[in-house]
Amino acid sequence: MNSPGPGVLISEVGPRDGLQSIRTVMPTAAKLQWISALAAAGLREIEVGSFVPPRLLPQMADIREVVTHALSIPGLHVAVLTPNLRGAQSAFEAGVHKITLPVSVTNEHAMANIRKTTQQMIDEVRSIVALRDAQFPAVLIEAGVSVAFGCTIAGVVTDDQTMRMCAAMAECGVDEIGLSDTSGYANPVQVRRLFRRLQSEFGEKAGGAHFHNTRGQGLANVLAALDAGVTTIDSSQAGLGGCPYAPGATGNIVTEDLAFLLEAMGHDTGVDIDRLADARAILAQALPGEALYGHVHDAGLPKGFIYADGRAPSAPQPEGCLLGVAQ
Amino acid sequence: MNSPGPGVLISEVGPRDGLQSIRTVMPTAAKLQWISALAAAGLREIEVGSFVPPRLLPQMADIREVVTHALSIPGLHVAVLTPNLRGAQSAFEAGVHKITLPVSVTNEHAMANIRKTTQQMIDEVRSIVALRDAQFPAVLIEAGVSVAFGCTIAGVVTDDQTMRMCAAMAECGVDEIGLSDTSGYANPVQVRRLFRRLQSEFGEKAGGAHFHNTRGQGLANVLAALDAGVTTIDSSQAGLGGCPYAPGATGNIVTEDLAFLLEAMGHDTGVDIDRLADARAILAQALPGEALYGHVHDAGLPKGFIYADGRAPSAPQPEGCLLGVAQ
Repeated sequence: MNSPGPGVLISEVGPRDGLQSIRTVMPTAAKLQWISALAAAGLREIEVGSFVPPRLLPQMADIREVVTHALSIPGLHVAVLTPNLRGAQSAFEAGVHKITLPVSVTNEHAMANIRKTTQQMIDEVRSIVALRDAQFPAVLIEAGVSVAFGCTIAGVVTDDQTMRMCAAMAECGVDEIGLSDTSGYANPVQVRRLFRRLQSEFGEKAGGAHFHNTRGQGLANVLAALDAGVTTIDSSQAGLGGCPYAPGATGNIVTEDLAFLLEAMGHDTGVDIDRLADARAILAQALPGEALYGHVHDAGLPKGFIYADGRAPSAPQPEGCLLGVAQ
Repeated sequence: MNSPGPGVLISEVGPRDGLQSIRTVMPTAAKLQWISALAAAGLREIEVGSFVPPRLLPQMADIREVVTHALSIPGLHVAVLTPNLRGAQSAFEAGVHKITLPVSVTNEHAMANIRKTTQQMIDEVRSIVALRDAQFPAVLIEAGVSVAFGCTIAGVVTDDQTMRMCAAMAECGVDEIGLSDTSGYANPVQVRRLFRRLQSEFGEKAGGAHFHNTRGQGLANVLAALDAGVTTIDSSQAGLGGCPYAPGATGNIVTEDLAFLLEAMGHDTGVDIDRLADARAILAQALPGEALYGHVHDAGLPKGFIYADGRAPSAPQPEGCLLGVAQ
């Protein structure tokens, strides 16, 4: 067992980033059940959906019902994503605890993603903060700085470009500035460098990490973020989502595998990895045929595994296998 | 682009660890083609098979022909695995450059894997080193210390247990001592701690890292090993192998994804990731129905990607996709 490190918050984004990335629309009843099961497995913050026009994202048409349900779960921190003032207003009125605003570093990505230039989006953020300050002071606002490590459209993104957008966000008055590897371009050297700079330049406002696992580098980048002192990491159960042109190119990093990494390293997350399986079963049933990713769910916890807080696993552990002459 | 770090040797173990772990026997002609293609993609060391009785591992029955072929590839460092003196003698006579001896930390794993106690295996290693010293002085001997981070049968393995086996190996006179996470139990904190200790206690003899990706932690553990100064990492093309009881529980870490990690971080590997696809195509054709893992092969290299040595990619890069409102 490793000595305890600082606790880390896993911010589950499956109901938002996962569900928006697949074509199937998950039935509302199953969604509510799923969110309850995620919370029951110990996840303390869940991004439950987006406030966006249902015509653009029919997967999110039930967002109000979903938020109402999530707010009824004791202790759960309820977050949503919204790309504009109108969505933010609805989110505030629905009573969410936190909103995340996707702000691209590059104009190319901003236009493709939300049909605004970066400058227009900065202005939108400023209006959203003003609205919050005036009428909904309790709600937390996070800027999710997208394509912070590189852009599928514009290509290379420099550290200075990313930091300039972070500075604009700080100036707008957001509470937290997170960095997103939207395109799965990040490497650990870059992650350490950027998060250290984020912390040194923005102190308390420096936020969490949102990594896509497009090139399988997600957990290595998490380790780099932890080295830089990051204590909030986004992930999605079963790595739900992904990019339809590339089978196997999962979307977000996998919550189960992330929870194992953190707990094994001594970072308390509050998550019960075995109980995540209950939530995963709901997903598997509601989304037949959808690819569910991750390794820990299949392999189980190691023999003798102990959580960071000293707990033993809640379910029996599977036997290992041996084939050939192992090294 | 990151500043250049030290070069890292990717030791490809697919033809040994990959092929021994699947039930299909790869036809010899395809195997030779595959090994040539791996070398042509820039891999400088390949573990091409095992010297073991064909009755135990029919996948390795053609090992002599495979070694002869591999030795004909200019500049390739040809390694094999062998669990005993008899196999080592054959490997030496075949002219290999390096042999790896699998030495389990726990008696339980040693008995299950090679039907010897750890003490019997230590004695075997001593005889193998004596034979090498007397008759084949040019051949390198590596002890691959198995279940170094935990054992599927015995459970928790302490650092001291692992270091005691490393000390026995150093005393036997092996040239290199590598640490293997045979069971996919390792976490980055443990990896950094153990490799640092390996280097401080055994200096020049401290060897490489062999990680299984059973729980998806492989590349995070690679990053930890790099932090500890490790410069040789084993991997297998397409993560070939894996554990039949757990679909998705891949065997070794994926060469393509590892090469991307290292090059993106600034570590020159000499590998051309696009040319690895030629080798992968041979594998796909020779092993129909076999699961091939990894993300970088599907997703392609990032737009604007540059190798550690300043090269641009040799193939055009795919367009990214955009769905929903990305963060």
